[in-house]
Order: sequence, then C-alpha cells, then structure tokens
Amino acid sequence: MQKTQVYIQDDFWEDYSELIRNTVIPYQWEALNDRIEGAEPSYAIRNFRIAAGLEEGGFGGWIFQDSDLYKWLEAVSYSLRDRPDPELERIADEAVDLIGQAQHDNGYLNTYFTIKEPGKQWTNLYEAHELYCAGHLIEAAVAYYQATDKRKLLDISCRFADLIESLFGTEPGQMRAYCGHQEIELALVKLYGVTGEERYLNLSRYFIDERGSKPNYFVEEWERRGRTSIWNRGTPNLEMYQSHLPVREQTVAVGHSVRAVYMYTAMADLARLTGDDSLREACERLWANVTRKQMYITGGIGATHLGEAFTFDYDLPNDTVYAETCASIGLIFWARRMLQLEAKSEYADVMERALYNNVLGSMSRDGKHFFYVNPLEVWPEASRKNPDKFHVKPVRQKWFGCSCCPPNVARLLSSLSDYIYDVSADGATVYVHLYIGSEIGFAAPDGCLVTLHQRSQLPWQGRTEFSVSLANGAGAAGTAFELALRVPDWFQNGRPVLKVNREIQDYRMENGYAKIERTWLEGDTLEWLLPMEAKLIAAHPQIRANAGKAAIQRGPLIYCVEEADNGAPLASLSMAGEPKLSERLVPDLFGGCIVVEGDGLADDSASWPEGQPYQPLNKQTKPVRFKAIPYYLWGNRQPGEMSVWLRC
Amino acid sequence: MQKTQVYIQDDFWEDYSELIRNTVIPYQWEALNDRIEGAEPSYAIRNFRIAAGLEEGGFGGWIFQDSDLYKWLEAVSYSLRDRPDPELERIADEAVDLIGQAQHDNGYLNTYFTIKEPGKQWTNLYEAHELYCAGHLIEAAVAYYQATDKRKLLDISCRFADLIESLFGTEPGQMRAYCGHQEIELALVKLYGVTGEERYLNLSRYFIDERGSKPNYFVEEWERRGRTSIWNRGTPNLEMYQSHLPVREQTVAVGHSVRAVYMYTAMADLARLTGDDSLREACERLWANVTRKQMYITGGIGATHLGEAFTFDYDLPNDTVYAETCASIGLIFWARRMLQLEAKSEYADVMERALYNNVLGSMSRDGKHFFYVNPLEVWPEASRKNPDKFHVKPVRQKWFGCSCCPPNVARLLSSLSDYIYDVSADGATVYVHLYIGSEIGFAAPDGCLVTLHQRSQLPWQGRTEFSVSLANGAGAAGTAFELALRVPDWFQNGRPVLKVNREIQDYRMENGYAKIERTWLEGDTLEWLLPMEAKLIAAHPQIRANAGKAAIQRGPLIYCVEEADNGAPLASLSMAGEPKLSERLVPDLFGGCIVVEGDGLADDSASWPEGQPYQPLNKQTKPVRFKAIPYYLWGNRQPGEMSVWLRC
Repeated sequence: MQKTQVYIQDDFWEDYSELIRNTVIPYQWEALNDRIEGAEPSYAIRNFRIAAGLEEGGFGGWIFQDSDLYKWLEAVSYSLRDRPDPELERIADEAVDLIGQAQHDNGYLNTYFTIKEPGKQWTNLYEAHELYCAGHLIEAAVAYYQATDKRKLLDISCRFADLIESLFGTEPGQMRAYCGHQEIELALVKLYGVTGEERYLNLSRYFIDERGSKPNYFVEEWERRGRTSIWNRGTPNLEMYQSHLPVREQTVAVGHSVRAVYMYTAMADLARLTGDDSLREACERLWANVTRKQMYITGGIGATHLGEAFTFDYDLPNDTVYAETCASIGLIFWARRMLQLEAKSEYADVMERALYNNVLGSMSRDGKHFFYVNPLEVWPEASRKNPDKFHVKPVRQKWFGCSCCPPNVARLLSSLSDYIYDVSADGATVYVHLYIGSEIGFAAPDGCLVTLHQRSQLPWQGRTEFSVSLANGAGAAGTAFELALRVPDWFQNGRPVLKVNREIQDYRMENGYAKIERTWLEGDTLEWLLPMEAKLIAAHPQIRANAGKAAIQRGPLIYCVEEADNGAPLASLSMAGEPKLSERLVPDLFGGCIVVEGDGLADDSASWPEGQPYQPLNKQTKPVRFKAIPYYLWGNRQPGEMSVWLRC
Repeated sequence: MQKTQVYIQDDFWEDYSELIRNTVIPYQWEALNDRIEGAEPSYAIRNFRIAAGLEEGGFGGWIFQDSDLYKWLEAVSYSLRDRPDPELERIADEAVDLIGQAQHDNGYLNTYFTIKEPGKQWTNLYEAHELYCAGHLIEAAVAYYQATDKRKLLDISCRFADLIESLFGTEPGQMRAYCGHQEIELALVKLYGVTGEERYLNLSRYFIDERGSKPNYFVEEWERRGRTSIWNRGTPNLEMYQSHLPVREQTVAVGHSVRAVYMYTAMADLARLTGDDSLREACERLWANVTRKQMYITGGIGATHLGEAFTFDYDLPNDTVYAETCASIGLIFWARRMLQLEAKSEYADVMERALYNNVLGSMSRDGKHFFYVNPLEVWPEASRKNPDKFHVKPVRQKWFGCSCCPPNVARLLSSLSDYIYDVSADGATVYVHLYIGSEIGFAAPDGCLVTLHQRSQLPWQGRTEFSVSLANGAGAAGTAFELALRVPDWFQNGRPVLKVNREIQDYRMENGYAKIERTWLEGDTLEWLLPMEAKLIAAHPQIRANAGKAAIQRGPLIYCVEEADNGAPLASLSMAGEPKLSERLVPDLFGGCIVVEGDGLADDSASWPEGQPYQPLNKQTKPVRFKAIPYYLWGNRQPGEMSVWLRC
C-alpha cells in the first residue's frame, strides 16, 4: 500500500473529532491524574511517578493500569497529527519524560512490577499483562513519532522491545512464552513499520506461532507458580486466552473477545507481510465465524459478561449481552487489516457497522460518559435488581477504574482518517472503504500528485461526491487511476448510480467494489448515489433471541426504540407484520437526527384482569405509532427501556 | 382443624408413592452412605459416625450436610406412616441411634461444629446453618414419632430445642439472634404441635419477631468475627436473608427464595396459632406479591441463580431462571398454612400449580435424577457454552453434593395425604383442596365417624367422585356436614356441575369453594365435574419475557414443546395466532399421557441466504403441526430444546 495523507472534513465526524480533542483527551488526562470528582481514581500517572522515584506510595489500579496512559498518548498523537497543539504536545512530552524515568536500565518498563512485585517479572504471563502493556507503549510510541517526529518514546519502546526479544523465543535460555492478553503482536508489526527492523516482525510472528503449542506454557507456568493465580481458579482456561490450539488450527472464535480480535489483527498483519497462506486462511475462517455467527447487528461481539467472551454460534442474547466497546474497536482493527490483505467489501461493511453503532453508541454526547457493555435490550429495573444483568448499564458511566474503553474510543476516533482509503503501492487503484468527508493525497502511477476530495452526507443520506485535483502540472493530459467505491451491504437496490461530471457511467464490480478506471482531469467530479431507506431486518433463524422479531436499519445506522418515545414495557409493542416505515428529520433531537416511524400494535394492558399473572389468551391490542432513533444515540435522555429488536 | 386420617388411593399418585418408597428412599440412603457410583459423595452418615466417635476422619460436604439425613428420615417417616416396613424402620432406628450418639451431653447436635470447628458454635448464625439443621432434626423427629410412636428422636430434638431455648431470646445473657436460613421457626411449631409445650411456639415466635430488628444481629456478629464470612463478601446481605426489615414490615419477597418461603410458612403458622393479625396481614401481602408478580406459570419462584433469589416484580426470564425445586416445595408448605389460616381457593390453586409442574417435573421417571433448577426454556448448547446458563441443566442430575432438592421432593410426595383435605374442628365442614384419589376418616358434628372416598381422574380428566360411608350406626338418619369443593383456577367455564346421587344439585360459592351442606346417608355419592380442555394462556403484560407468547395449559398441567417432537430451533415455531388445540392420549408415551397439538408456522430457514447473519425481512414460513407434552415430563427423552412459551 502507498503511504498517503488523509484529512477528515466532515460535519458528522468533525463533531466527534472536536469532542475527542476538546473534551475526551483533556478529560482523560484529568482522569489519569485522579482529578475527576466522583470517578474511581485511575492511579496511572501516580504509578509512573512512584516507579520513577518522584513520589512515595503503593501501586494503584489494575495490573495493566500503565496501558491507560499509553492509549491516551496514542490518541493524543493522532490528534496532534491532525491539528498541532503546542500545549497538548508539551503535556505529552512531560508524560513521555515520566515514562522514560520509570524505565529500568535494562529497558524493562512496567510500574506494577517495579512498585509492587519487583521480583516477579515474567512469572505470570498468563495474567499479568506485562507484554500487553509493552504493546500499548509501542503503539503509543509509533503514533507519537509519526505525529511529532520525536524519537524519545520510540527509543524507550525499542529498548523495551529489544529486551523482550532477548528474553522470548526458541533459543536456549529463552522463555517459550507469550502474553495472556494479546496486543504486543500487533504493536510489534507497527514498530517494524516505522523502524524497518525485521526482528520486531519476527518477534511478533514468534508470539503468534508459539501460541497454543504443546506443552502449554500457561499450564507449565501455573505449575511453577504453585498453581496460584491472581483472578482465575483451577487450571488455566486456555480457550479464554485463545491458547488452546495453535492459531492456525483455530476455526471458531472463543474466549475473551478483545484478546481474540487483537490476536486476529496481528495474524492478518503477519499474513500480509510474510505472505503466510496458512495464517491468511485462519484469518478468513475466523472472520467468517465471528461476523456471520457471533456478531450482533450493531457490530458488537462477546455474548457473555462472564469472561467478557464469545460463547458459540448464533448465541446472541440481547439483554445479558456483553458486546464490549473495546471488542468492537478490536473488530474494526481486524477488519482494517483484512482489507489490507484483500479489498473485499465485507470487511469494510463490518468496520462501518461496528463504528456507527456499537462504538459510536458507547460514548455520550458530552464525551464524558461511556458504555463498556453495549446491550441491544435494556430494562433499567432489571439492571439494578437482577444480578444476571448488573453489568448492563442503562446510563453511560464516568471513567472506570478499569477504563479500557474510553481511551480506546479516543484512539480509534482520532485516527479515523486511517480507515477510509487504501491506495495500491503504484497508485493505480484508490479504494474508498468508508464514506466520510475527507481529502486524500496520493501519487498516481505516472507520478502525478492527486488530491481526491470526498464530500459525504453519511450517515443521513447516501449521496457522496468526489472531486479530483491534480498537481505537478498534469494539465490537460490528466492522470490515470482506478477508483474503487465500496457498495455497502445496506444498499440492496441493484447497482448504484455513478456519475462522472454529471453523466452516468458504467463500472465493473469486483469483490463488492465498483471500479471505474479512467484518465482523470483537474476538476473532474464523481457522484456516487446510494439512496437510503429505512428497512426491516431479520436475523438468521438460528439466532433464537431474535426469532419473530425485526430490527430497523437505515443506511449504516441500526435503530432502536426507547421508552422516552414509546412508553413501557417496550415488549408490549409489536410492528404487526411488515409496516411501511416513514422517515423524518427531527432538527431539535440530538442536534438533528432522522427518526423512523411506523404503525404498530401495543398490547392493551388496561383489559388485563387485576392481580392475575396468567390468564387465558385474549389478545387485546391497540394501534400505536412507534418511533425509532439511531442506536448510537440511545441513552441520552432520561433512563428507560431500550430495544433494537421488535416483534413483527 | 380436626386431626384426620387420610390414605391416598390414586393411580397417578401411587406411581409416585411407589417410586418414593421403592426407589427414592433406598437410593437416597445409598447416597447418604456414599455408595452411589459416579455421584458426588454426601458424607452425611460418615459425618455422624465421626461425630459419634465411631470413625476417624474429617467433616465432609456442606456445612448443612446433617439436614440431608434429617430430611431423609422425615420422608421415611411418612412412608412408614402409610405403609409399615420393618426393615426400613430398622434402618431408620439405627440412624436415630447414630444421631443420638452424636449429640452432646448438653443437647447440642451438629456434626460440622462437633468435628471441624468445636470452638465456634453459634458464632456465625448468618451462614452456618446450625439452627437450620436443628429445624430439620425437629421436623424428622416429629414425623418419626407420629409414624412409629417411638420417642427417641423426639427426645433428642427436645433436648436440643431446650438448649436452644436457653441460649436465644431477650433475657439477659441470651443471644438476640436468629438463623441465616429460616427453617427452625416452622419446625418448632410442629414440635409444639406434638408436645403441647408452649415454649416451643414462643421460641418460634421469638425468632420471627426478632428478625430484622435494629441493630442487625448479622452485622454485629460479622463485626465480632472480624468481618469474615464463609461465602459472602463485604457487609452481610440482609435482603438476601430476609433480615433487612422486621417481618411485619416486609411487603415484597426478596432474597433467597427457599429461606423466604420457609419463613413465610412459619409466619402463617404463628398467625393462625397466636391470632396475630399483623403477622397475618404480612403473610397476605407477601403472598400476593409472590404469587401474582414473582411466580412462573409452573409454580416456580426465584428468577436468578445468583443467590438463588427473587429479583423483582414481573422479572421472570425463562432461560436464565432459577425456580429451584426446594423453593416450590416451600411455596407448597406456605400455601398449605395459608389454607389453614383461611380456606381460600387461591392458596390451593398455587399449591396444585407448583405440585403438578415445577415439583413433579424436577424428578425423572426413574426417581434417581433430579432438576434443582426448573427452566421454562432450554437450549442445551447454551447450557454447556454460555456461562450465564451453566446452572440450567437440560438433563436431570444424579444426587448432588448439595442435595437439598431430592430429599425435599421425597418428604413432600410421601406426605401428600396431608395436603388434600381440611376438616373443621367440629367436623361441620370438609374442605377438598386437591383432587387426588383418597379416603379420609373424620368425625361429623354429631360424632358419627364418616369415611369419605374420593376417586379422581386428575390430572388427565376433571371428573371426581365422592362416596360417603358412615359408621357408628348412623343408619337411616345419616349425618350432617358440609362438603367444600375447590373450584380450580383452571376451570373457567362458569359454575361446575355437582351431582348428588346422580341428580344435579345447587351449591353456594365461598372463597372459591363450592359448598354443599346436607344430611349424608350411607352410600351417598357426589360427582364433581370440571371438564378440562387445553387452553392458551397469556402472561401479564408486564412480564416482558412472555410478551407476544402463549403457554398451553390443560387442567392443572402446564405444557411445553420439546425438540424431540418439534425439531429445532424451537424459537422458529409460532402458533400463528390462536390455533384450535386438539388433545390426544398417547398410550406409549411416558406410560400414557395426553399430548396437545395444533397448527403452527415454522420459519423457513431453507430460504435464508447462506452465510448472512442479517437480511432484509422477508418472512417465509411453512405450516407445521406442533405437539406439546406436559411440562412435568420434559427432559425424559434425548436432550434437546424445550420451551413452555411459544410465539402466537
């Protein structure tokens, strides 16, 4: 792929960039410094200060608390890349200095083991997240270097990576181990990307290749620890950590969903960079399993909070769901790498689905409250009173002690420009994966520097316009390249209309992309029309939770009904067959959004005999008009019931 | 109430009595002696032998393991009462001797604290079940005495009860405490019943009155223990143990469901025996809450496995349900006491509902396998692979280490004759609560000894016949008394037909009972006709889990669909409106049972596009004939899906 520069210019998304830049990043910095009133302290900065010898005290927070600072730094990097901010960069530089001060002479860097268990380094790969934290350090370092050209954090992470490379591997004296929480694998690929050092790529491949081999490292290590664990009881749960089988033999997604998709992301990277077909096939198999059989319609993954894990094919309960924000972000990471492996629209479809629904919905409109769990059905009283649903919150939470999700949202949304396009190495083909207003600069095959402007009306309307600017004096001759426009899975009305300079043009379809190759002249315009309409969507018959029900989708947005608009219980509401759906822009709702309405029936509870829990069936319904709002906006009014799936 | 003698003579129920007598009681004796291959050992007998000094070793099993032996002895007592069995009585006598040998000189009796924590008696009322075990000892002793006239176990339990009475109470030096698991309260009422000693009644009342008073005993005790607990973390969960409020201030059922209904049982006893109106009102309030808002259609209670507890009004999930067998048995105990407090048919309706569905369904047809959890919807793969449903078993289990339910089933079913009738103290009114073939002897107001024979065709047909035999030479004059026949809640076709000597007779209705008062002559017959038909039943609109669904009920039996008859997924099946239900006796199914069939629709999965989890709605259904079997018989074929509620 060609390295390109992309800038987002999009009303919908700039609201989010601004929110990340002006609210989320500053708020999270306050959180990392334990200055948010009423929120659990993070201890992250304090841990680094103690490890650096600048402060006295004990370790606070989770064993992987360091990663919160690293994820914040990564988000800051993307923000600085888009928009320089000397004051923010100064704060970040100080954080980098602090990290450097906490690093050991041999390159080791982890505040938990520095402060709390100095003698226990590398004795609990299964649970202790040392390599996981190293991975987030590396990701932050790569991003900070790319944004600022400053090498300090990169050097810190290279020193740590070099230590790790010396300790882990198949050579005599090395640990044949890998991390209980995959992350460093994908980070090392990035480190290879900026340094060009193949040993980092090889170390990533080693971790992936070694995982799940027999005898199992986690079991051996647990035996050596005297069969003790921090959180887990009994023999290590190998499926939970995706170490039950060598990765190439894994065919269905199991275990902790974030760990899984982080691992699959690295596998896809390695398959691409090393041309490893067996790894590629494993990725494709696992992709098919996750996205066809274990994914919620919102792009959420992970059906149970116990282990925050996948369960099994078609088990997608809406109300006891996990669908962690971080897991959908990991799914987007993975989808991005699958696109780089092969430009197939299904990868971008999933990326778009997870982004506009599960991920966007996780953040409140004030940028200060987050869902970790993203349910498809909520009954607030059950969330308070039924322990099986305690994890399902009807209201977004402030920064958590285990605040994995908010910094992950920040780093994804602040790097969104990386997800829109791919340009082949020679510049011959420009793939447009997402319809987000933006500008990309690239070099066409003839060397002409091209700027492609995209103006999009997504997610509200499906009309997208492109215009071409040419530099280097291409002049009247123009420059030839192919534009590949994704046909989204939500567009199912035949072939979309494509116009160049207002004239309809034919194109060929390949792997879900509409491809048009021509010699482009300065000022050429392209219109790409994907008219949207609200549709009723059904789930696969094996997904028992959704039998007899339908969801509403309009473009990439999944809709839901809320108690605020439809009363309670929402379960009393039925769409009564297949109603005609109407759409309406409501300017004063959440700053303007399109609601979907239709005719439905509500069970008439007034006719129910007083005091009887069960009675002979005597269906009494009354006509109602139901109103659905985009799922990503749910939970921004008074707490109430919410449901994505409605009886029909 | 008059003390009466009742003998069951009923094809349906004698199968169960025989099963209890010939299989369950012997099997459980083997289990108590750790002689069941493949089952978890009980350790119960072994604990008593060790405590008695007859064997060396450590304590085994749960802290309340003693109660399993007591519950077994109670069941044995009822069985001996109905049918003498010298060999069984000899074994029971030996068990009684063993219990006596384990008793301390001061009357104390508990093998856990004798063997394992001799210094810690009465230091953890919250969790340690000492008074709970004492309660089961007392219940066994009362039953054994009533069955055999042997006083030994009664004397053992009186000595223990006397010790307890000296230790607990409001006098200086006494513990103002009560048990974390209610049970002794109802047992002491029984002990009062056979001994006439008011101090036992007063002790029961003390425990009930003291519960939930401030400052809370469990909290104080926990502080004294240095804030340590066996199972629980943090401050004692007072709601879980129904000690958050004085019992008279409790308005909704909360916490562990078995504890709750055992307590309500004692409350109803005390309200009746002491004429305590405030206690009676509390019972009535809690009864309304449990049976109208927190009870499954099967008579199951307890919506969550976490704490085996009630959650809140109308929260009755079918698939993550608990509905423990013991809880429904406790509900039957409570209903029985409510009937004694006031003969209202709703109490007997609930008793019948829980008995024929949740309780009967808990036992396999071989009497050796039991459900502890009684779900209304089962997907076997989810029970294996989704940890939120690990507690929901698709197949009945062998004896458990914590085997509360099987001995509870045994003691309920072997004492079923106690649940059929009530006769007023003067013999003027005979209430028939349950339609179970049987014979009751009582004294009419004029002293005439009457034998009333009941022949019933329940649960399959609603025709019941009574005949009257008179002794004492009542001769041609006969004897006058009133017969009060319950009109079950499942009979809703106006007034049932009542015939005396084949002539239709009028009657008056009172509290759900049809009352006919006359002078009965030798040989008089009464026919009571409650024609049954299969009906579709809906749930209260607030019970979200059942919205848009119906269950099938025929007489007292709730029905369910199984995969064995209807394929999978069952969620694909819909009754398509309100189908006509047909009934058919299938002689070779489970020894002969009536199945219910109807026309339905199944989602046609063949038309679903390969590999797509979500697609625009395009309802494709095919007509099917669905087949439902009685819920109590589910899970007796190959494991598969089961559902009580069907889309309609």
